[in-house]
Amino acid sequence: MPDHEKKLEEILNNIRPVDETAREEARARQARLAKPPGSLGVLEDISVQVAGITGKVFNRLENRALLVFCADNGVVAEGVSCAPESVTLKQAVNLANGVTGAGVLAKAAGCAVYVYDVGINGDVDCGGVADRKITRGTKNIAQGAAMTRAQAARALLIGFDAASEVIEKGANIIGAGELGIGNTTTSAAVLSALTGRAPAETAGRGGGLTDEGMARKLKVIETALEVNKPDRNDVLDVISKVGGYDIAAMAGAFIGAACMRTPAVADGFISMVSALCAVRMAPRVREYIIASHSSCERGYRIAAEELGVEPMLDLRMRLGEGSGCPLAMLLADHACRVLNEMATFDEAGIDDGYLDAIRDTERKSE
Amino acid sequence: MPDHEKKLEEILNNIRPVDETAREEARARQARLAKPPGSLGVLEDISVQVAGITGKVFNRLENRALLVFCADNGVVAEGVSCAPESVTLKQAVNLANGVTGAGVLAKAAGCAVYVYDVGINGDVDCGGVADRKITRGTKNIAQGAAMTRAQAARALLIGFDAASEVIEKGANIIGAGELGIGNTTTSAAVLSALTGRAPAETAGRGGGLTDEGMARKLKVIETALEVNKPDRNDVLDVISKVGGYDIAAMAGAFIGAACMRTPAVADGFISMVSALCAVRMAPRVREYIIASHSSCERGYRIAAEELGVEPMLDLRMRLGEGSGCPLAMLLADHACRVLNEMATFDEAGIDDGYLDAIRDTERKSE
Repeated sequence: MPDHEKKLEEILNNIRPVDETAREEARARQARLAKPPGSLGVLEDISVQVAGITGKVFNRLENRALLVFCADNGVVAEGVSCAPESVTLKQAVNLANGVTGAGVLAKAAGCAVYVYDVGINGDVDCGGVADRKITRGTKNIAQGAAMTRAQAARALLIGFDAASEVIEKGANIIGAGELGIGNTTTSAAVLSALTGRAPAETAGRGGGLTDEGMARKLKVIETALEVNKPDRNDVLDVISKVGGYDIAAMAGAFIGAACMRTPAVADGFISMVSALCAVRMAPRVREYIIASHSSCERGYRIAAEELGVEPMLDLRMRLGEGSGCPLAMLLADHACRVLNEMATFDEAGIDDGYLDAIRDTERKSE
Repeated sequence: MPDHEKKLEEILNNIRPVDETAREEARARQARLAKPPGSLGVLEDISVQVAGITGKVFNRLENRALLVFCADNGVVAEGVSCAPESVTLKQAVNLANGVTGAGVLAKAAGCAVYVYDVGINGDVDCGGVADRKITRGTKNIAQGAAMTRAQAARALLIGFDAASEVIEKGANIIGAGELGIGNTTTSAAVLSALTGRAPAETAGRGGGLTDEGMARKLKVIETALEVNKPDRNDVLDVISKVGGYDIAAMAGAFIGAACMRTPAVADGFISMVSALCAVRMAPRVREYIIASHSSCERGYRIAAEELGVEPMLDLRMRLGEGSGCPLAMLLADHACRVLNEMATFDEAGIDDGYLDAIRDTERKSE
């Protein structure tokens, strides 16, 4: 087995399950807080999930980091995107300078942004974009494999190392985003390959395709699957044949977060497909993932259902870049603060006996 | 006409329409920002709405204030709530001390909290709760009017003055919340009275009623409507007969925000019913309202549809206290920051000609 793959396998074997004791303690504390049971909804669930992840009941997620992996995709030669390929490079630089949507939202949410070039098709002349370029873009998946298996493993390890470094520097929650013209096409192809669902179910209009462009995109994904015949039981095979460097690196970042017992936010369609790749490689990763913003891309629901996670936000955003991550990281921190700082019934001076009837009803309906 | 009502009428006549020019300028700038058209969804809409409200294209909403009006309701004598009445007083004090759900979430979102006693049934011994008590609770709406017409007008003016003062002190966005055991019953009664919809459509389980309690609640609301015969075209009549002081004060706060050209966040069922009261009194108030968190109370959708607003969040919260307001105020500020700080296509160095096809498609589908 090649070196990269061997290292990857060691990493995957190292992911521990979440801490059920801490989860239970957090759940029990939520029940003692002075409020109707379950009345903080998603915030309660997240505080409990985070407790399981870190192994501590009381958490703060104030050191937030968004990791954005940027790469081009050879498949744009097929006319599957309405935006020109050059946008990837320009927006990577703009993001590093804080003036794209995700850049502004991250600043607003007190979230650091790390931008990585994992395969931009051009020279990046910007100190804010970390050079992790594998090649200048992938190859055209409609004609053959996007990359070699070794390159896919290397991209995964780049994401893994990026997440590990950021967490070692102090981040206690990370988000994974992407920039890459053409990557809704590769994501849909990967999702179809992993699930057996037809491209018509997994592909959407991306940045805003016309009807004609959409028909072309579906045909291209079908061709890519036929030409490459990815093995759905071998994630590395799927990514290398019909994926992209961004997808691989994000999957690696999710695996990195799980290894470091740190919550990781998956945002939007491409990020969720990457999360699914990570979970298929190591099912324990699932418990470390928080889904932030929903996506109107057709395949999002399929990816979310396969993963068994529900996004917490739907603000009709569809910008990419992990732009929903900063908001979700803020909410996750607020969720933890509720668990930490709210008064219990005892502290609030309220006899919670009146809740027995509700608790009975809930118990019966379980 | 009594003094309170005369003052109220003057106020209502003073509300100006939003600034269409500023709205259009904000909308035009959104279209120039380097992103697919509409791809920031709700955030774009909010930035445009806020521009209309303040009359300025560039805004920041960093001085956030949550106003929580606390009052008891005589109708609790009918057994419509699972929680004892004493919870209103206890949670008002706990909220002022920052340890309830809304208190913690407000602190997390950098949002000041103002707590008002507009009719708690008990002595409030807490400096953090402003004394605006009208009476110790309202009367039982199942037997007669909750309050006099003059008391309703006074409660509205208390809310109006509270919002005006907080905005004068510097708040540039406010939220309105409530604490009051039994107030999902009064809110449903008000909503039924204003819309003609049956209590079975407007009432929900509140803090967590059993089936038996729910049946009783519906019967009580039906009785209240029969006994009081509120005039649906006279909001003050509706509030005084089947409402509560909290509902009246929140409606007044929404009116105050509109007078001061300040966005106001309506959160959850009771707050939305209050917003509907305000808008029925002065339709222009509608444009000043931002709906934060959805509610699972049955009547919420009816109130939202009547108002023509859509909530931005659904985290399955159902705590009350305006607990969804702080998150929504943060998001509204982030929405403004996107408009202020994102690069335009020109600044980003991207030729946006490729978007013409999308814009054409959108124009045709309009």
